Amino acid sequence: MQTIQSYVLGRWTPGASAPVSLHNPTTEEPVAELRSGGFDPRAVLEHARSEGLPALARLSFRERGELCKALAGALHAKREELIDVSVLNGGTTRGDAKFDIDGAIGTLVAYADLASKLPERPFLVDGPGLQLGRTARFWGQHVWLTRPGVALHINAFNFPAWGMLEKMACALVAGVPVIEKPGTPTALVASHVAQVLVESGKLPAGSYQFIAGSLGDTIEQLGPQDCIAFTGSSATGAKLRASPAVVRHNLRLNVEADSLNAAVLAPEVEAGCETYNLFLANVVLDMTQKTGQKCTATRRVLVPAGRLAEVRADLVAELARIQVGDPADKATRMGPLASKSQFDEVRAGIERLARSGEIACGGAQAARPKGWFLAPTLIAARDAAQPVFHAEEVFGPCASLLPYSGAPEEAARIVALGGGGLVTSAYSNDNAWCERYLAGAGPWHGRVWFASDKSAEQSLAPGMVLPSLVHGGPGRAGGGEELGGERGLHFYMQRVAVQGFKGLVESSFGQAPAGSAV
Amino acid sequence: MQTIQSYVLGRWTPGASAPVSLHNPTTEEPVAELRSGGFDPRAVLEHARSEGLPALARLSFRERGELCKALAGALHAKREELIDVSVLNGGTTRGDAKFDIDGAIGTLVAYADLASKLPERPFLVDGPGLQLGRTARFWGQHVWLTRPGVALHINAFNFPAWGMLEKMACALVAGVPVIEKPGTPTALVASHVAQVLVESGKLPAGSYQFIAGSLGDTIEQLGPQDCIAFTGSSATGAKLRASPAVVRHNLRLNVEADSLNAAVLAPEVEAGCETYNLFLANVVLDMTQKTGQKCTATRRVLVPAGRLAEVRADLVAELARIQVGDPADKATRMGPLASKSQFDEVRAGIERLARSGEIACGGAQAARPKGWFLAPTLIAARDAAQPVFHAEEVFGPCASLLPYSGAPEEAARIVALGGGGLVTSAYSNDNAWCERYLAGAGPWHGRVWFASDKSAEQSLAPGMVLPSLVHGGPGRAGGGEELGGERGLHFYMQRVAVQGFKGLVESSFGQAPAGSAV
Repeated sequence: MQTIQSYVLGRWTPGASAPVSLHNPTTEEPVAELRSGGFDPRAVLEHARSEGLPALARLSFRERGELCKALAGALHAKREELIDVSVLNGGTTRGDAKFDIDGAIGTLVAYADLASKLPERPFLVDGPGLQLGRTARFWGQHVWLTRPGVALHINAFNFPAWGMLEKMACALVAGVPVIEKPGTPTALVASHVAQVLVESGKLPAGSYQFIAGSLGDTIEQLGPQDCIAFTGSSATGAKLRASPAVVRHNLRLNVEADSLNAAVLAPEVEAGCETYNLFLANVVLDMTQKTGQKCTATRRVLVPAGRLAEVRADLVAELARIQVGDPADKATRMGPLASKSQFDEVRAGIERLARSGEIACGGAQAARPKGWFLAPTLIAARDAAQPVFHAEEVFGPCASLLPYSGAPEEAARIVALGGGGLVTSAYSNDNAWCERYLAGAGPWHGRVWFASDKSAEQSLAPGMVLPSLVHGGPGRAGGGEELGGERGLHFYMQRVAVQGFKGLVESSFGQAPAGSAV
Repeated sequence: MQTIQSYVLGRWTPGASAPVSLHNPTTEEPVAELRSGGFDPRAVLEHARSEGLPALARLSFRERGELCKALAGALHAKREELIDVSVLNGGTTRGDAKFDIDGAIGTLVAYADLASKLPERPFLVDGPGLQLGRTARFWGQHVWLTRPGVALHINAFNFPAWGMLEKMACALVAGVPVIEKPGTPTALVASHVAQVLVESGKLPAGSYQFIAGSLGDTIEQLGPQDCIAFTGSSATGAKLRASPAVVRHNLRLNVEADSLNAAVLAPEVEAGCETYNLFLANVVLDMTQKTGQKCTATRRVLVPAGRLAEVRADLVAELARIQVGDPADKATRMGPLASKSQFDEVRAGIERLARSGEIACGGAQAARPKGWFLAPTLIAARDAAQPVFHAEEVFGPCASLLPYSGAPEEAARIVALGGGGLVTSAYSNDNAWCERYLAGAGPWHGRVWFASDKSAEQSLAPGMVLPSLVHGGPGRAGGGEELGGERGLHFYMQRVAVQGFKGLVESSFGQAPAGSAV
């Protein structure tokens, strides 16, 4: 039995409160325990402010990128060990464990690469300079400056590595020290990641702290230059949004919460073509990868009404091929849910959905006598407009099948019933159809993904979050935005309009002349 | 006695609740009454959604810009009438009334000009296209799409014209219908502006509604694509931030609240030089314009400790020249505060500040026997670190004088005690000093303004909000951002990452090839 500690004030610190057990979702056996507390939140924040901030400020963007690259290297060196812990504590297959760990490494490398192209000066230039007076003497320039605060990252259990490092990469490159709180069910994985990062010896003092378990009153101690980035449930997101510190200081808060991501099949995509095959493959992948515990997993599948029976049969056949079982077993394609509470919640969710539809495959019953296993579950809705299919994120290997007319506007209208999502995918070879779908569904999403015969071979699945594209979505999805290359740094920076004599503003704060970039 | 009505569902509608009186701040006589209610918030929102949204969607950016230009023309044609109402209900001098009305007209014209340069297609392109796959076949592009929602604008009493039109210009160009709620004390001015806009006949049905008095449960009826932009007190901002609809839907909320804007004199600026004279002139202007009821007014003046006596004497001498009196009188440089409650609050604020300093001129006593008049008030702090000078926005013609060492880092540290502001101004001919001041004070502000001998002649005062530069600030200032040219439209739009076959993504959603712009 391992004991998870927090890494605060530059040392590993045991918790003080009653222990919580973490389990192996495959066997239901306890594998670690976690005790909250053992630290003073004020001291943790002060450490970040007084040590971490100046240490990062001494580094250029490029040097912070090199830090990210070094962290990526350290994770890569311990990849096998991390995969083993992920299988043990997360119930992930080795493939799913790699998805998480390689996602973390890839994001760090992408931000290292981005940082290597940023200016030597400690700020980013935003747009061209502007003449403000009668002549060009009085000049304006927008710049992004690092906010002298602390980033509190509240991460979800489903991506203990990627989720943490994705937020960290942006904060560190921007120059802001981080405090990482892992999701408790998989905190053993997160704490192993934290150990690797700390033991790399690359992190400047105060730039990284890791709080396992409760945050205590950390949030209440945050000030106006601090920020919170949260990934998790809408309910917790709402609590954070209404929390006194956020409200009092207009604290920056990025929420990435529930999302009923929808895949839409356009009417002209015939069975057997490349786009149709990709549709089947991606829906199955985005339903079952990480046992559906992926914020970008496909939750709703919209199919032209006349095609419903055919698509249902094809999806059921494909889902039947997903072998559910011990994630340590190489033949296994889908492991258990990560925790007992997830298992219970997903079962309850499936039951609620099933009351308004028909279970095409899978269901709420346990798929194995021991462990938190469910079979991939497809529920055919009786009516696409039923609110339950659009209001309830069942965070497991479960999606609903919904009929629509084939018109992109109707698809968009149905998809929008979800109240805002992270990503929607559409399968069509008709550019006009795609443009019309984007016009309707686009504003409800952070990302819109199109497949066609021409890109099928090369496209990454819609559930794949890329460091170069924004990740987030309006409304129910949290209203936030992460990643997107340089855009991901802006959350940790303040956009400032600088005004004054052109000779000062342009030379000190303007775009560096061509050729002078590093 | 005029009765203020709301303009909802395409008609002027009387209120239903008990009347509230609006006054002439010069004479304290009632000039209008306002009754809240008389409408169903659901119907108002539905009107905006079902009529306003599609009507604006039928217009291109350029056409929406032409709408702004037409509204500017309509306001210009009624400028004299609006100035008279402003003097009557706002207690503004004619100069201050023009500042408000011309600010509104200028912002509309600036956004008309901006819109004329936007693409013919109904979205904005954000950054370059990105290769996502192994080859360029799989491609990404960020775009901004109009959010199919309603913009609720809750405006402050101090700029009944400019404040409303500044928000409106951005929303309308972005294609989002507006509901404008004026600040009650000067709602007579706002309602005259509203009448001019409506009578112009240019506003598409449903694109503009005006709610005088209480919003009823309008906020509770908002959905995930709607937004609120608010200008006013921190207390109301906090209430909005914690309101159930905002929390439940992760509703977009832009708050522009208190700001203790600081002017800083660098040590090398000698008395008599152009920069010093501009410092005196701007501090006096930004203390007394609009009787200090300006969110960007100067509230704190930082002066090198050794220069304190000299600068204090010079400022007192300049402030003594500000003639306080009937705003209708051409000789008057400063009118009354806009309402009895403002008058009372400012007097109480001056008394609180005076307990930690010395009144150099002015004070809490009424400047005239009738009307809500105060003299320009300068309070010399005993100690720059006293919290009262940084925690309290006294929203009137009042500023504090604070000593500092002359080091830009110390000035920035003192200024940051304000917890985040809209603008800070610095007077220096030393570029290195300016760079160091920006590094420290920049992240605490939305705008940093520099004066030097070289730009003195042409520079606009720091209190001047420009449509091309962002307006807003972190922390106490609300954490929001408005204007800034195209940036101001983004609040009303959703940034979406589009992925797919390059042939689709680039041609349908990418940057138009050079030369094809309108």
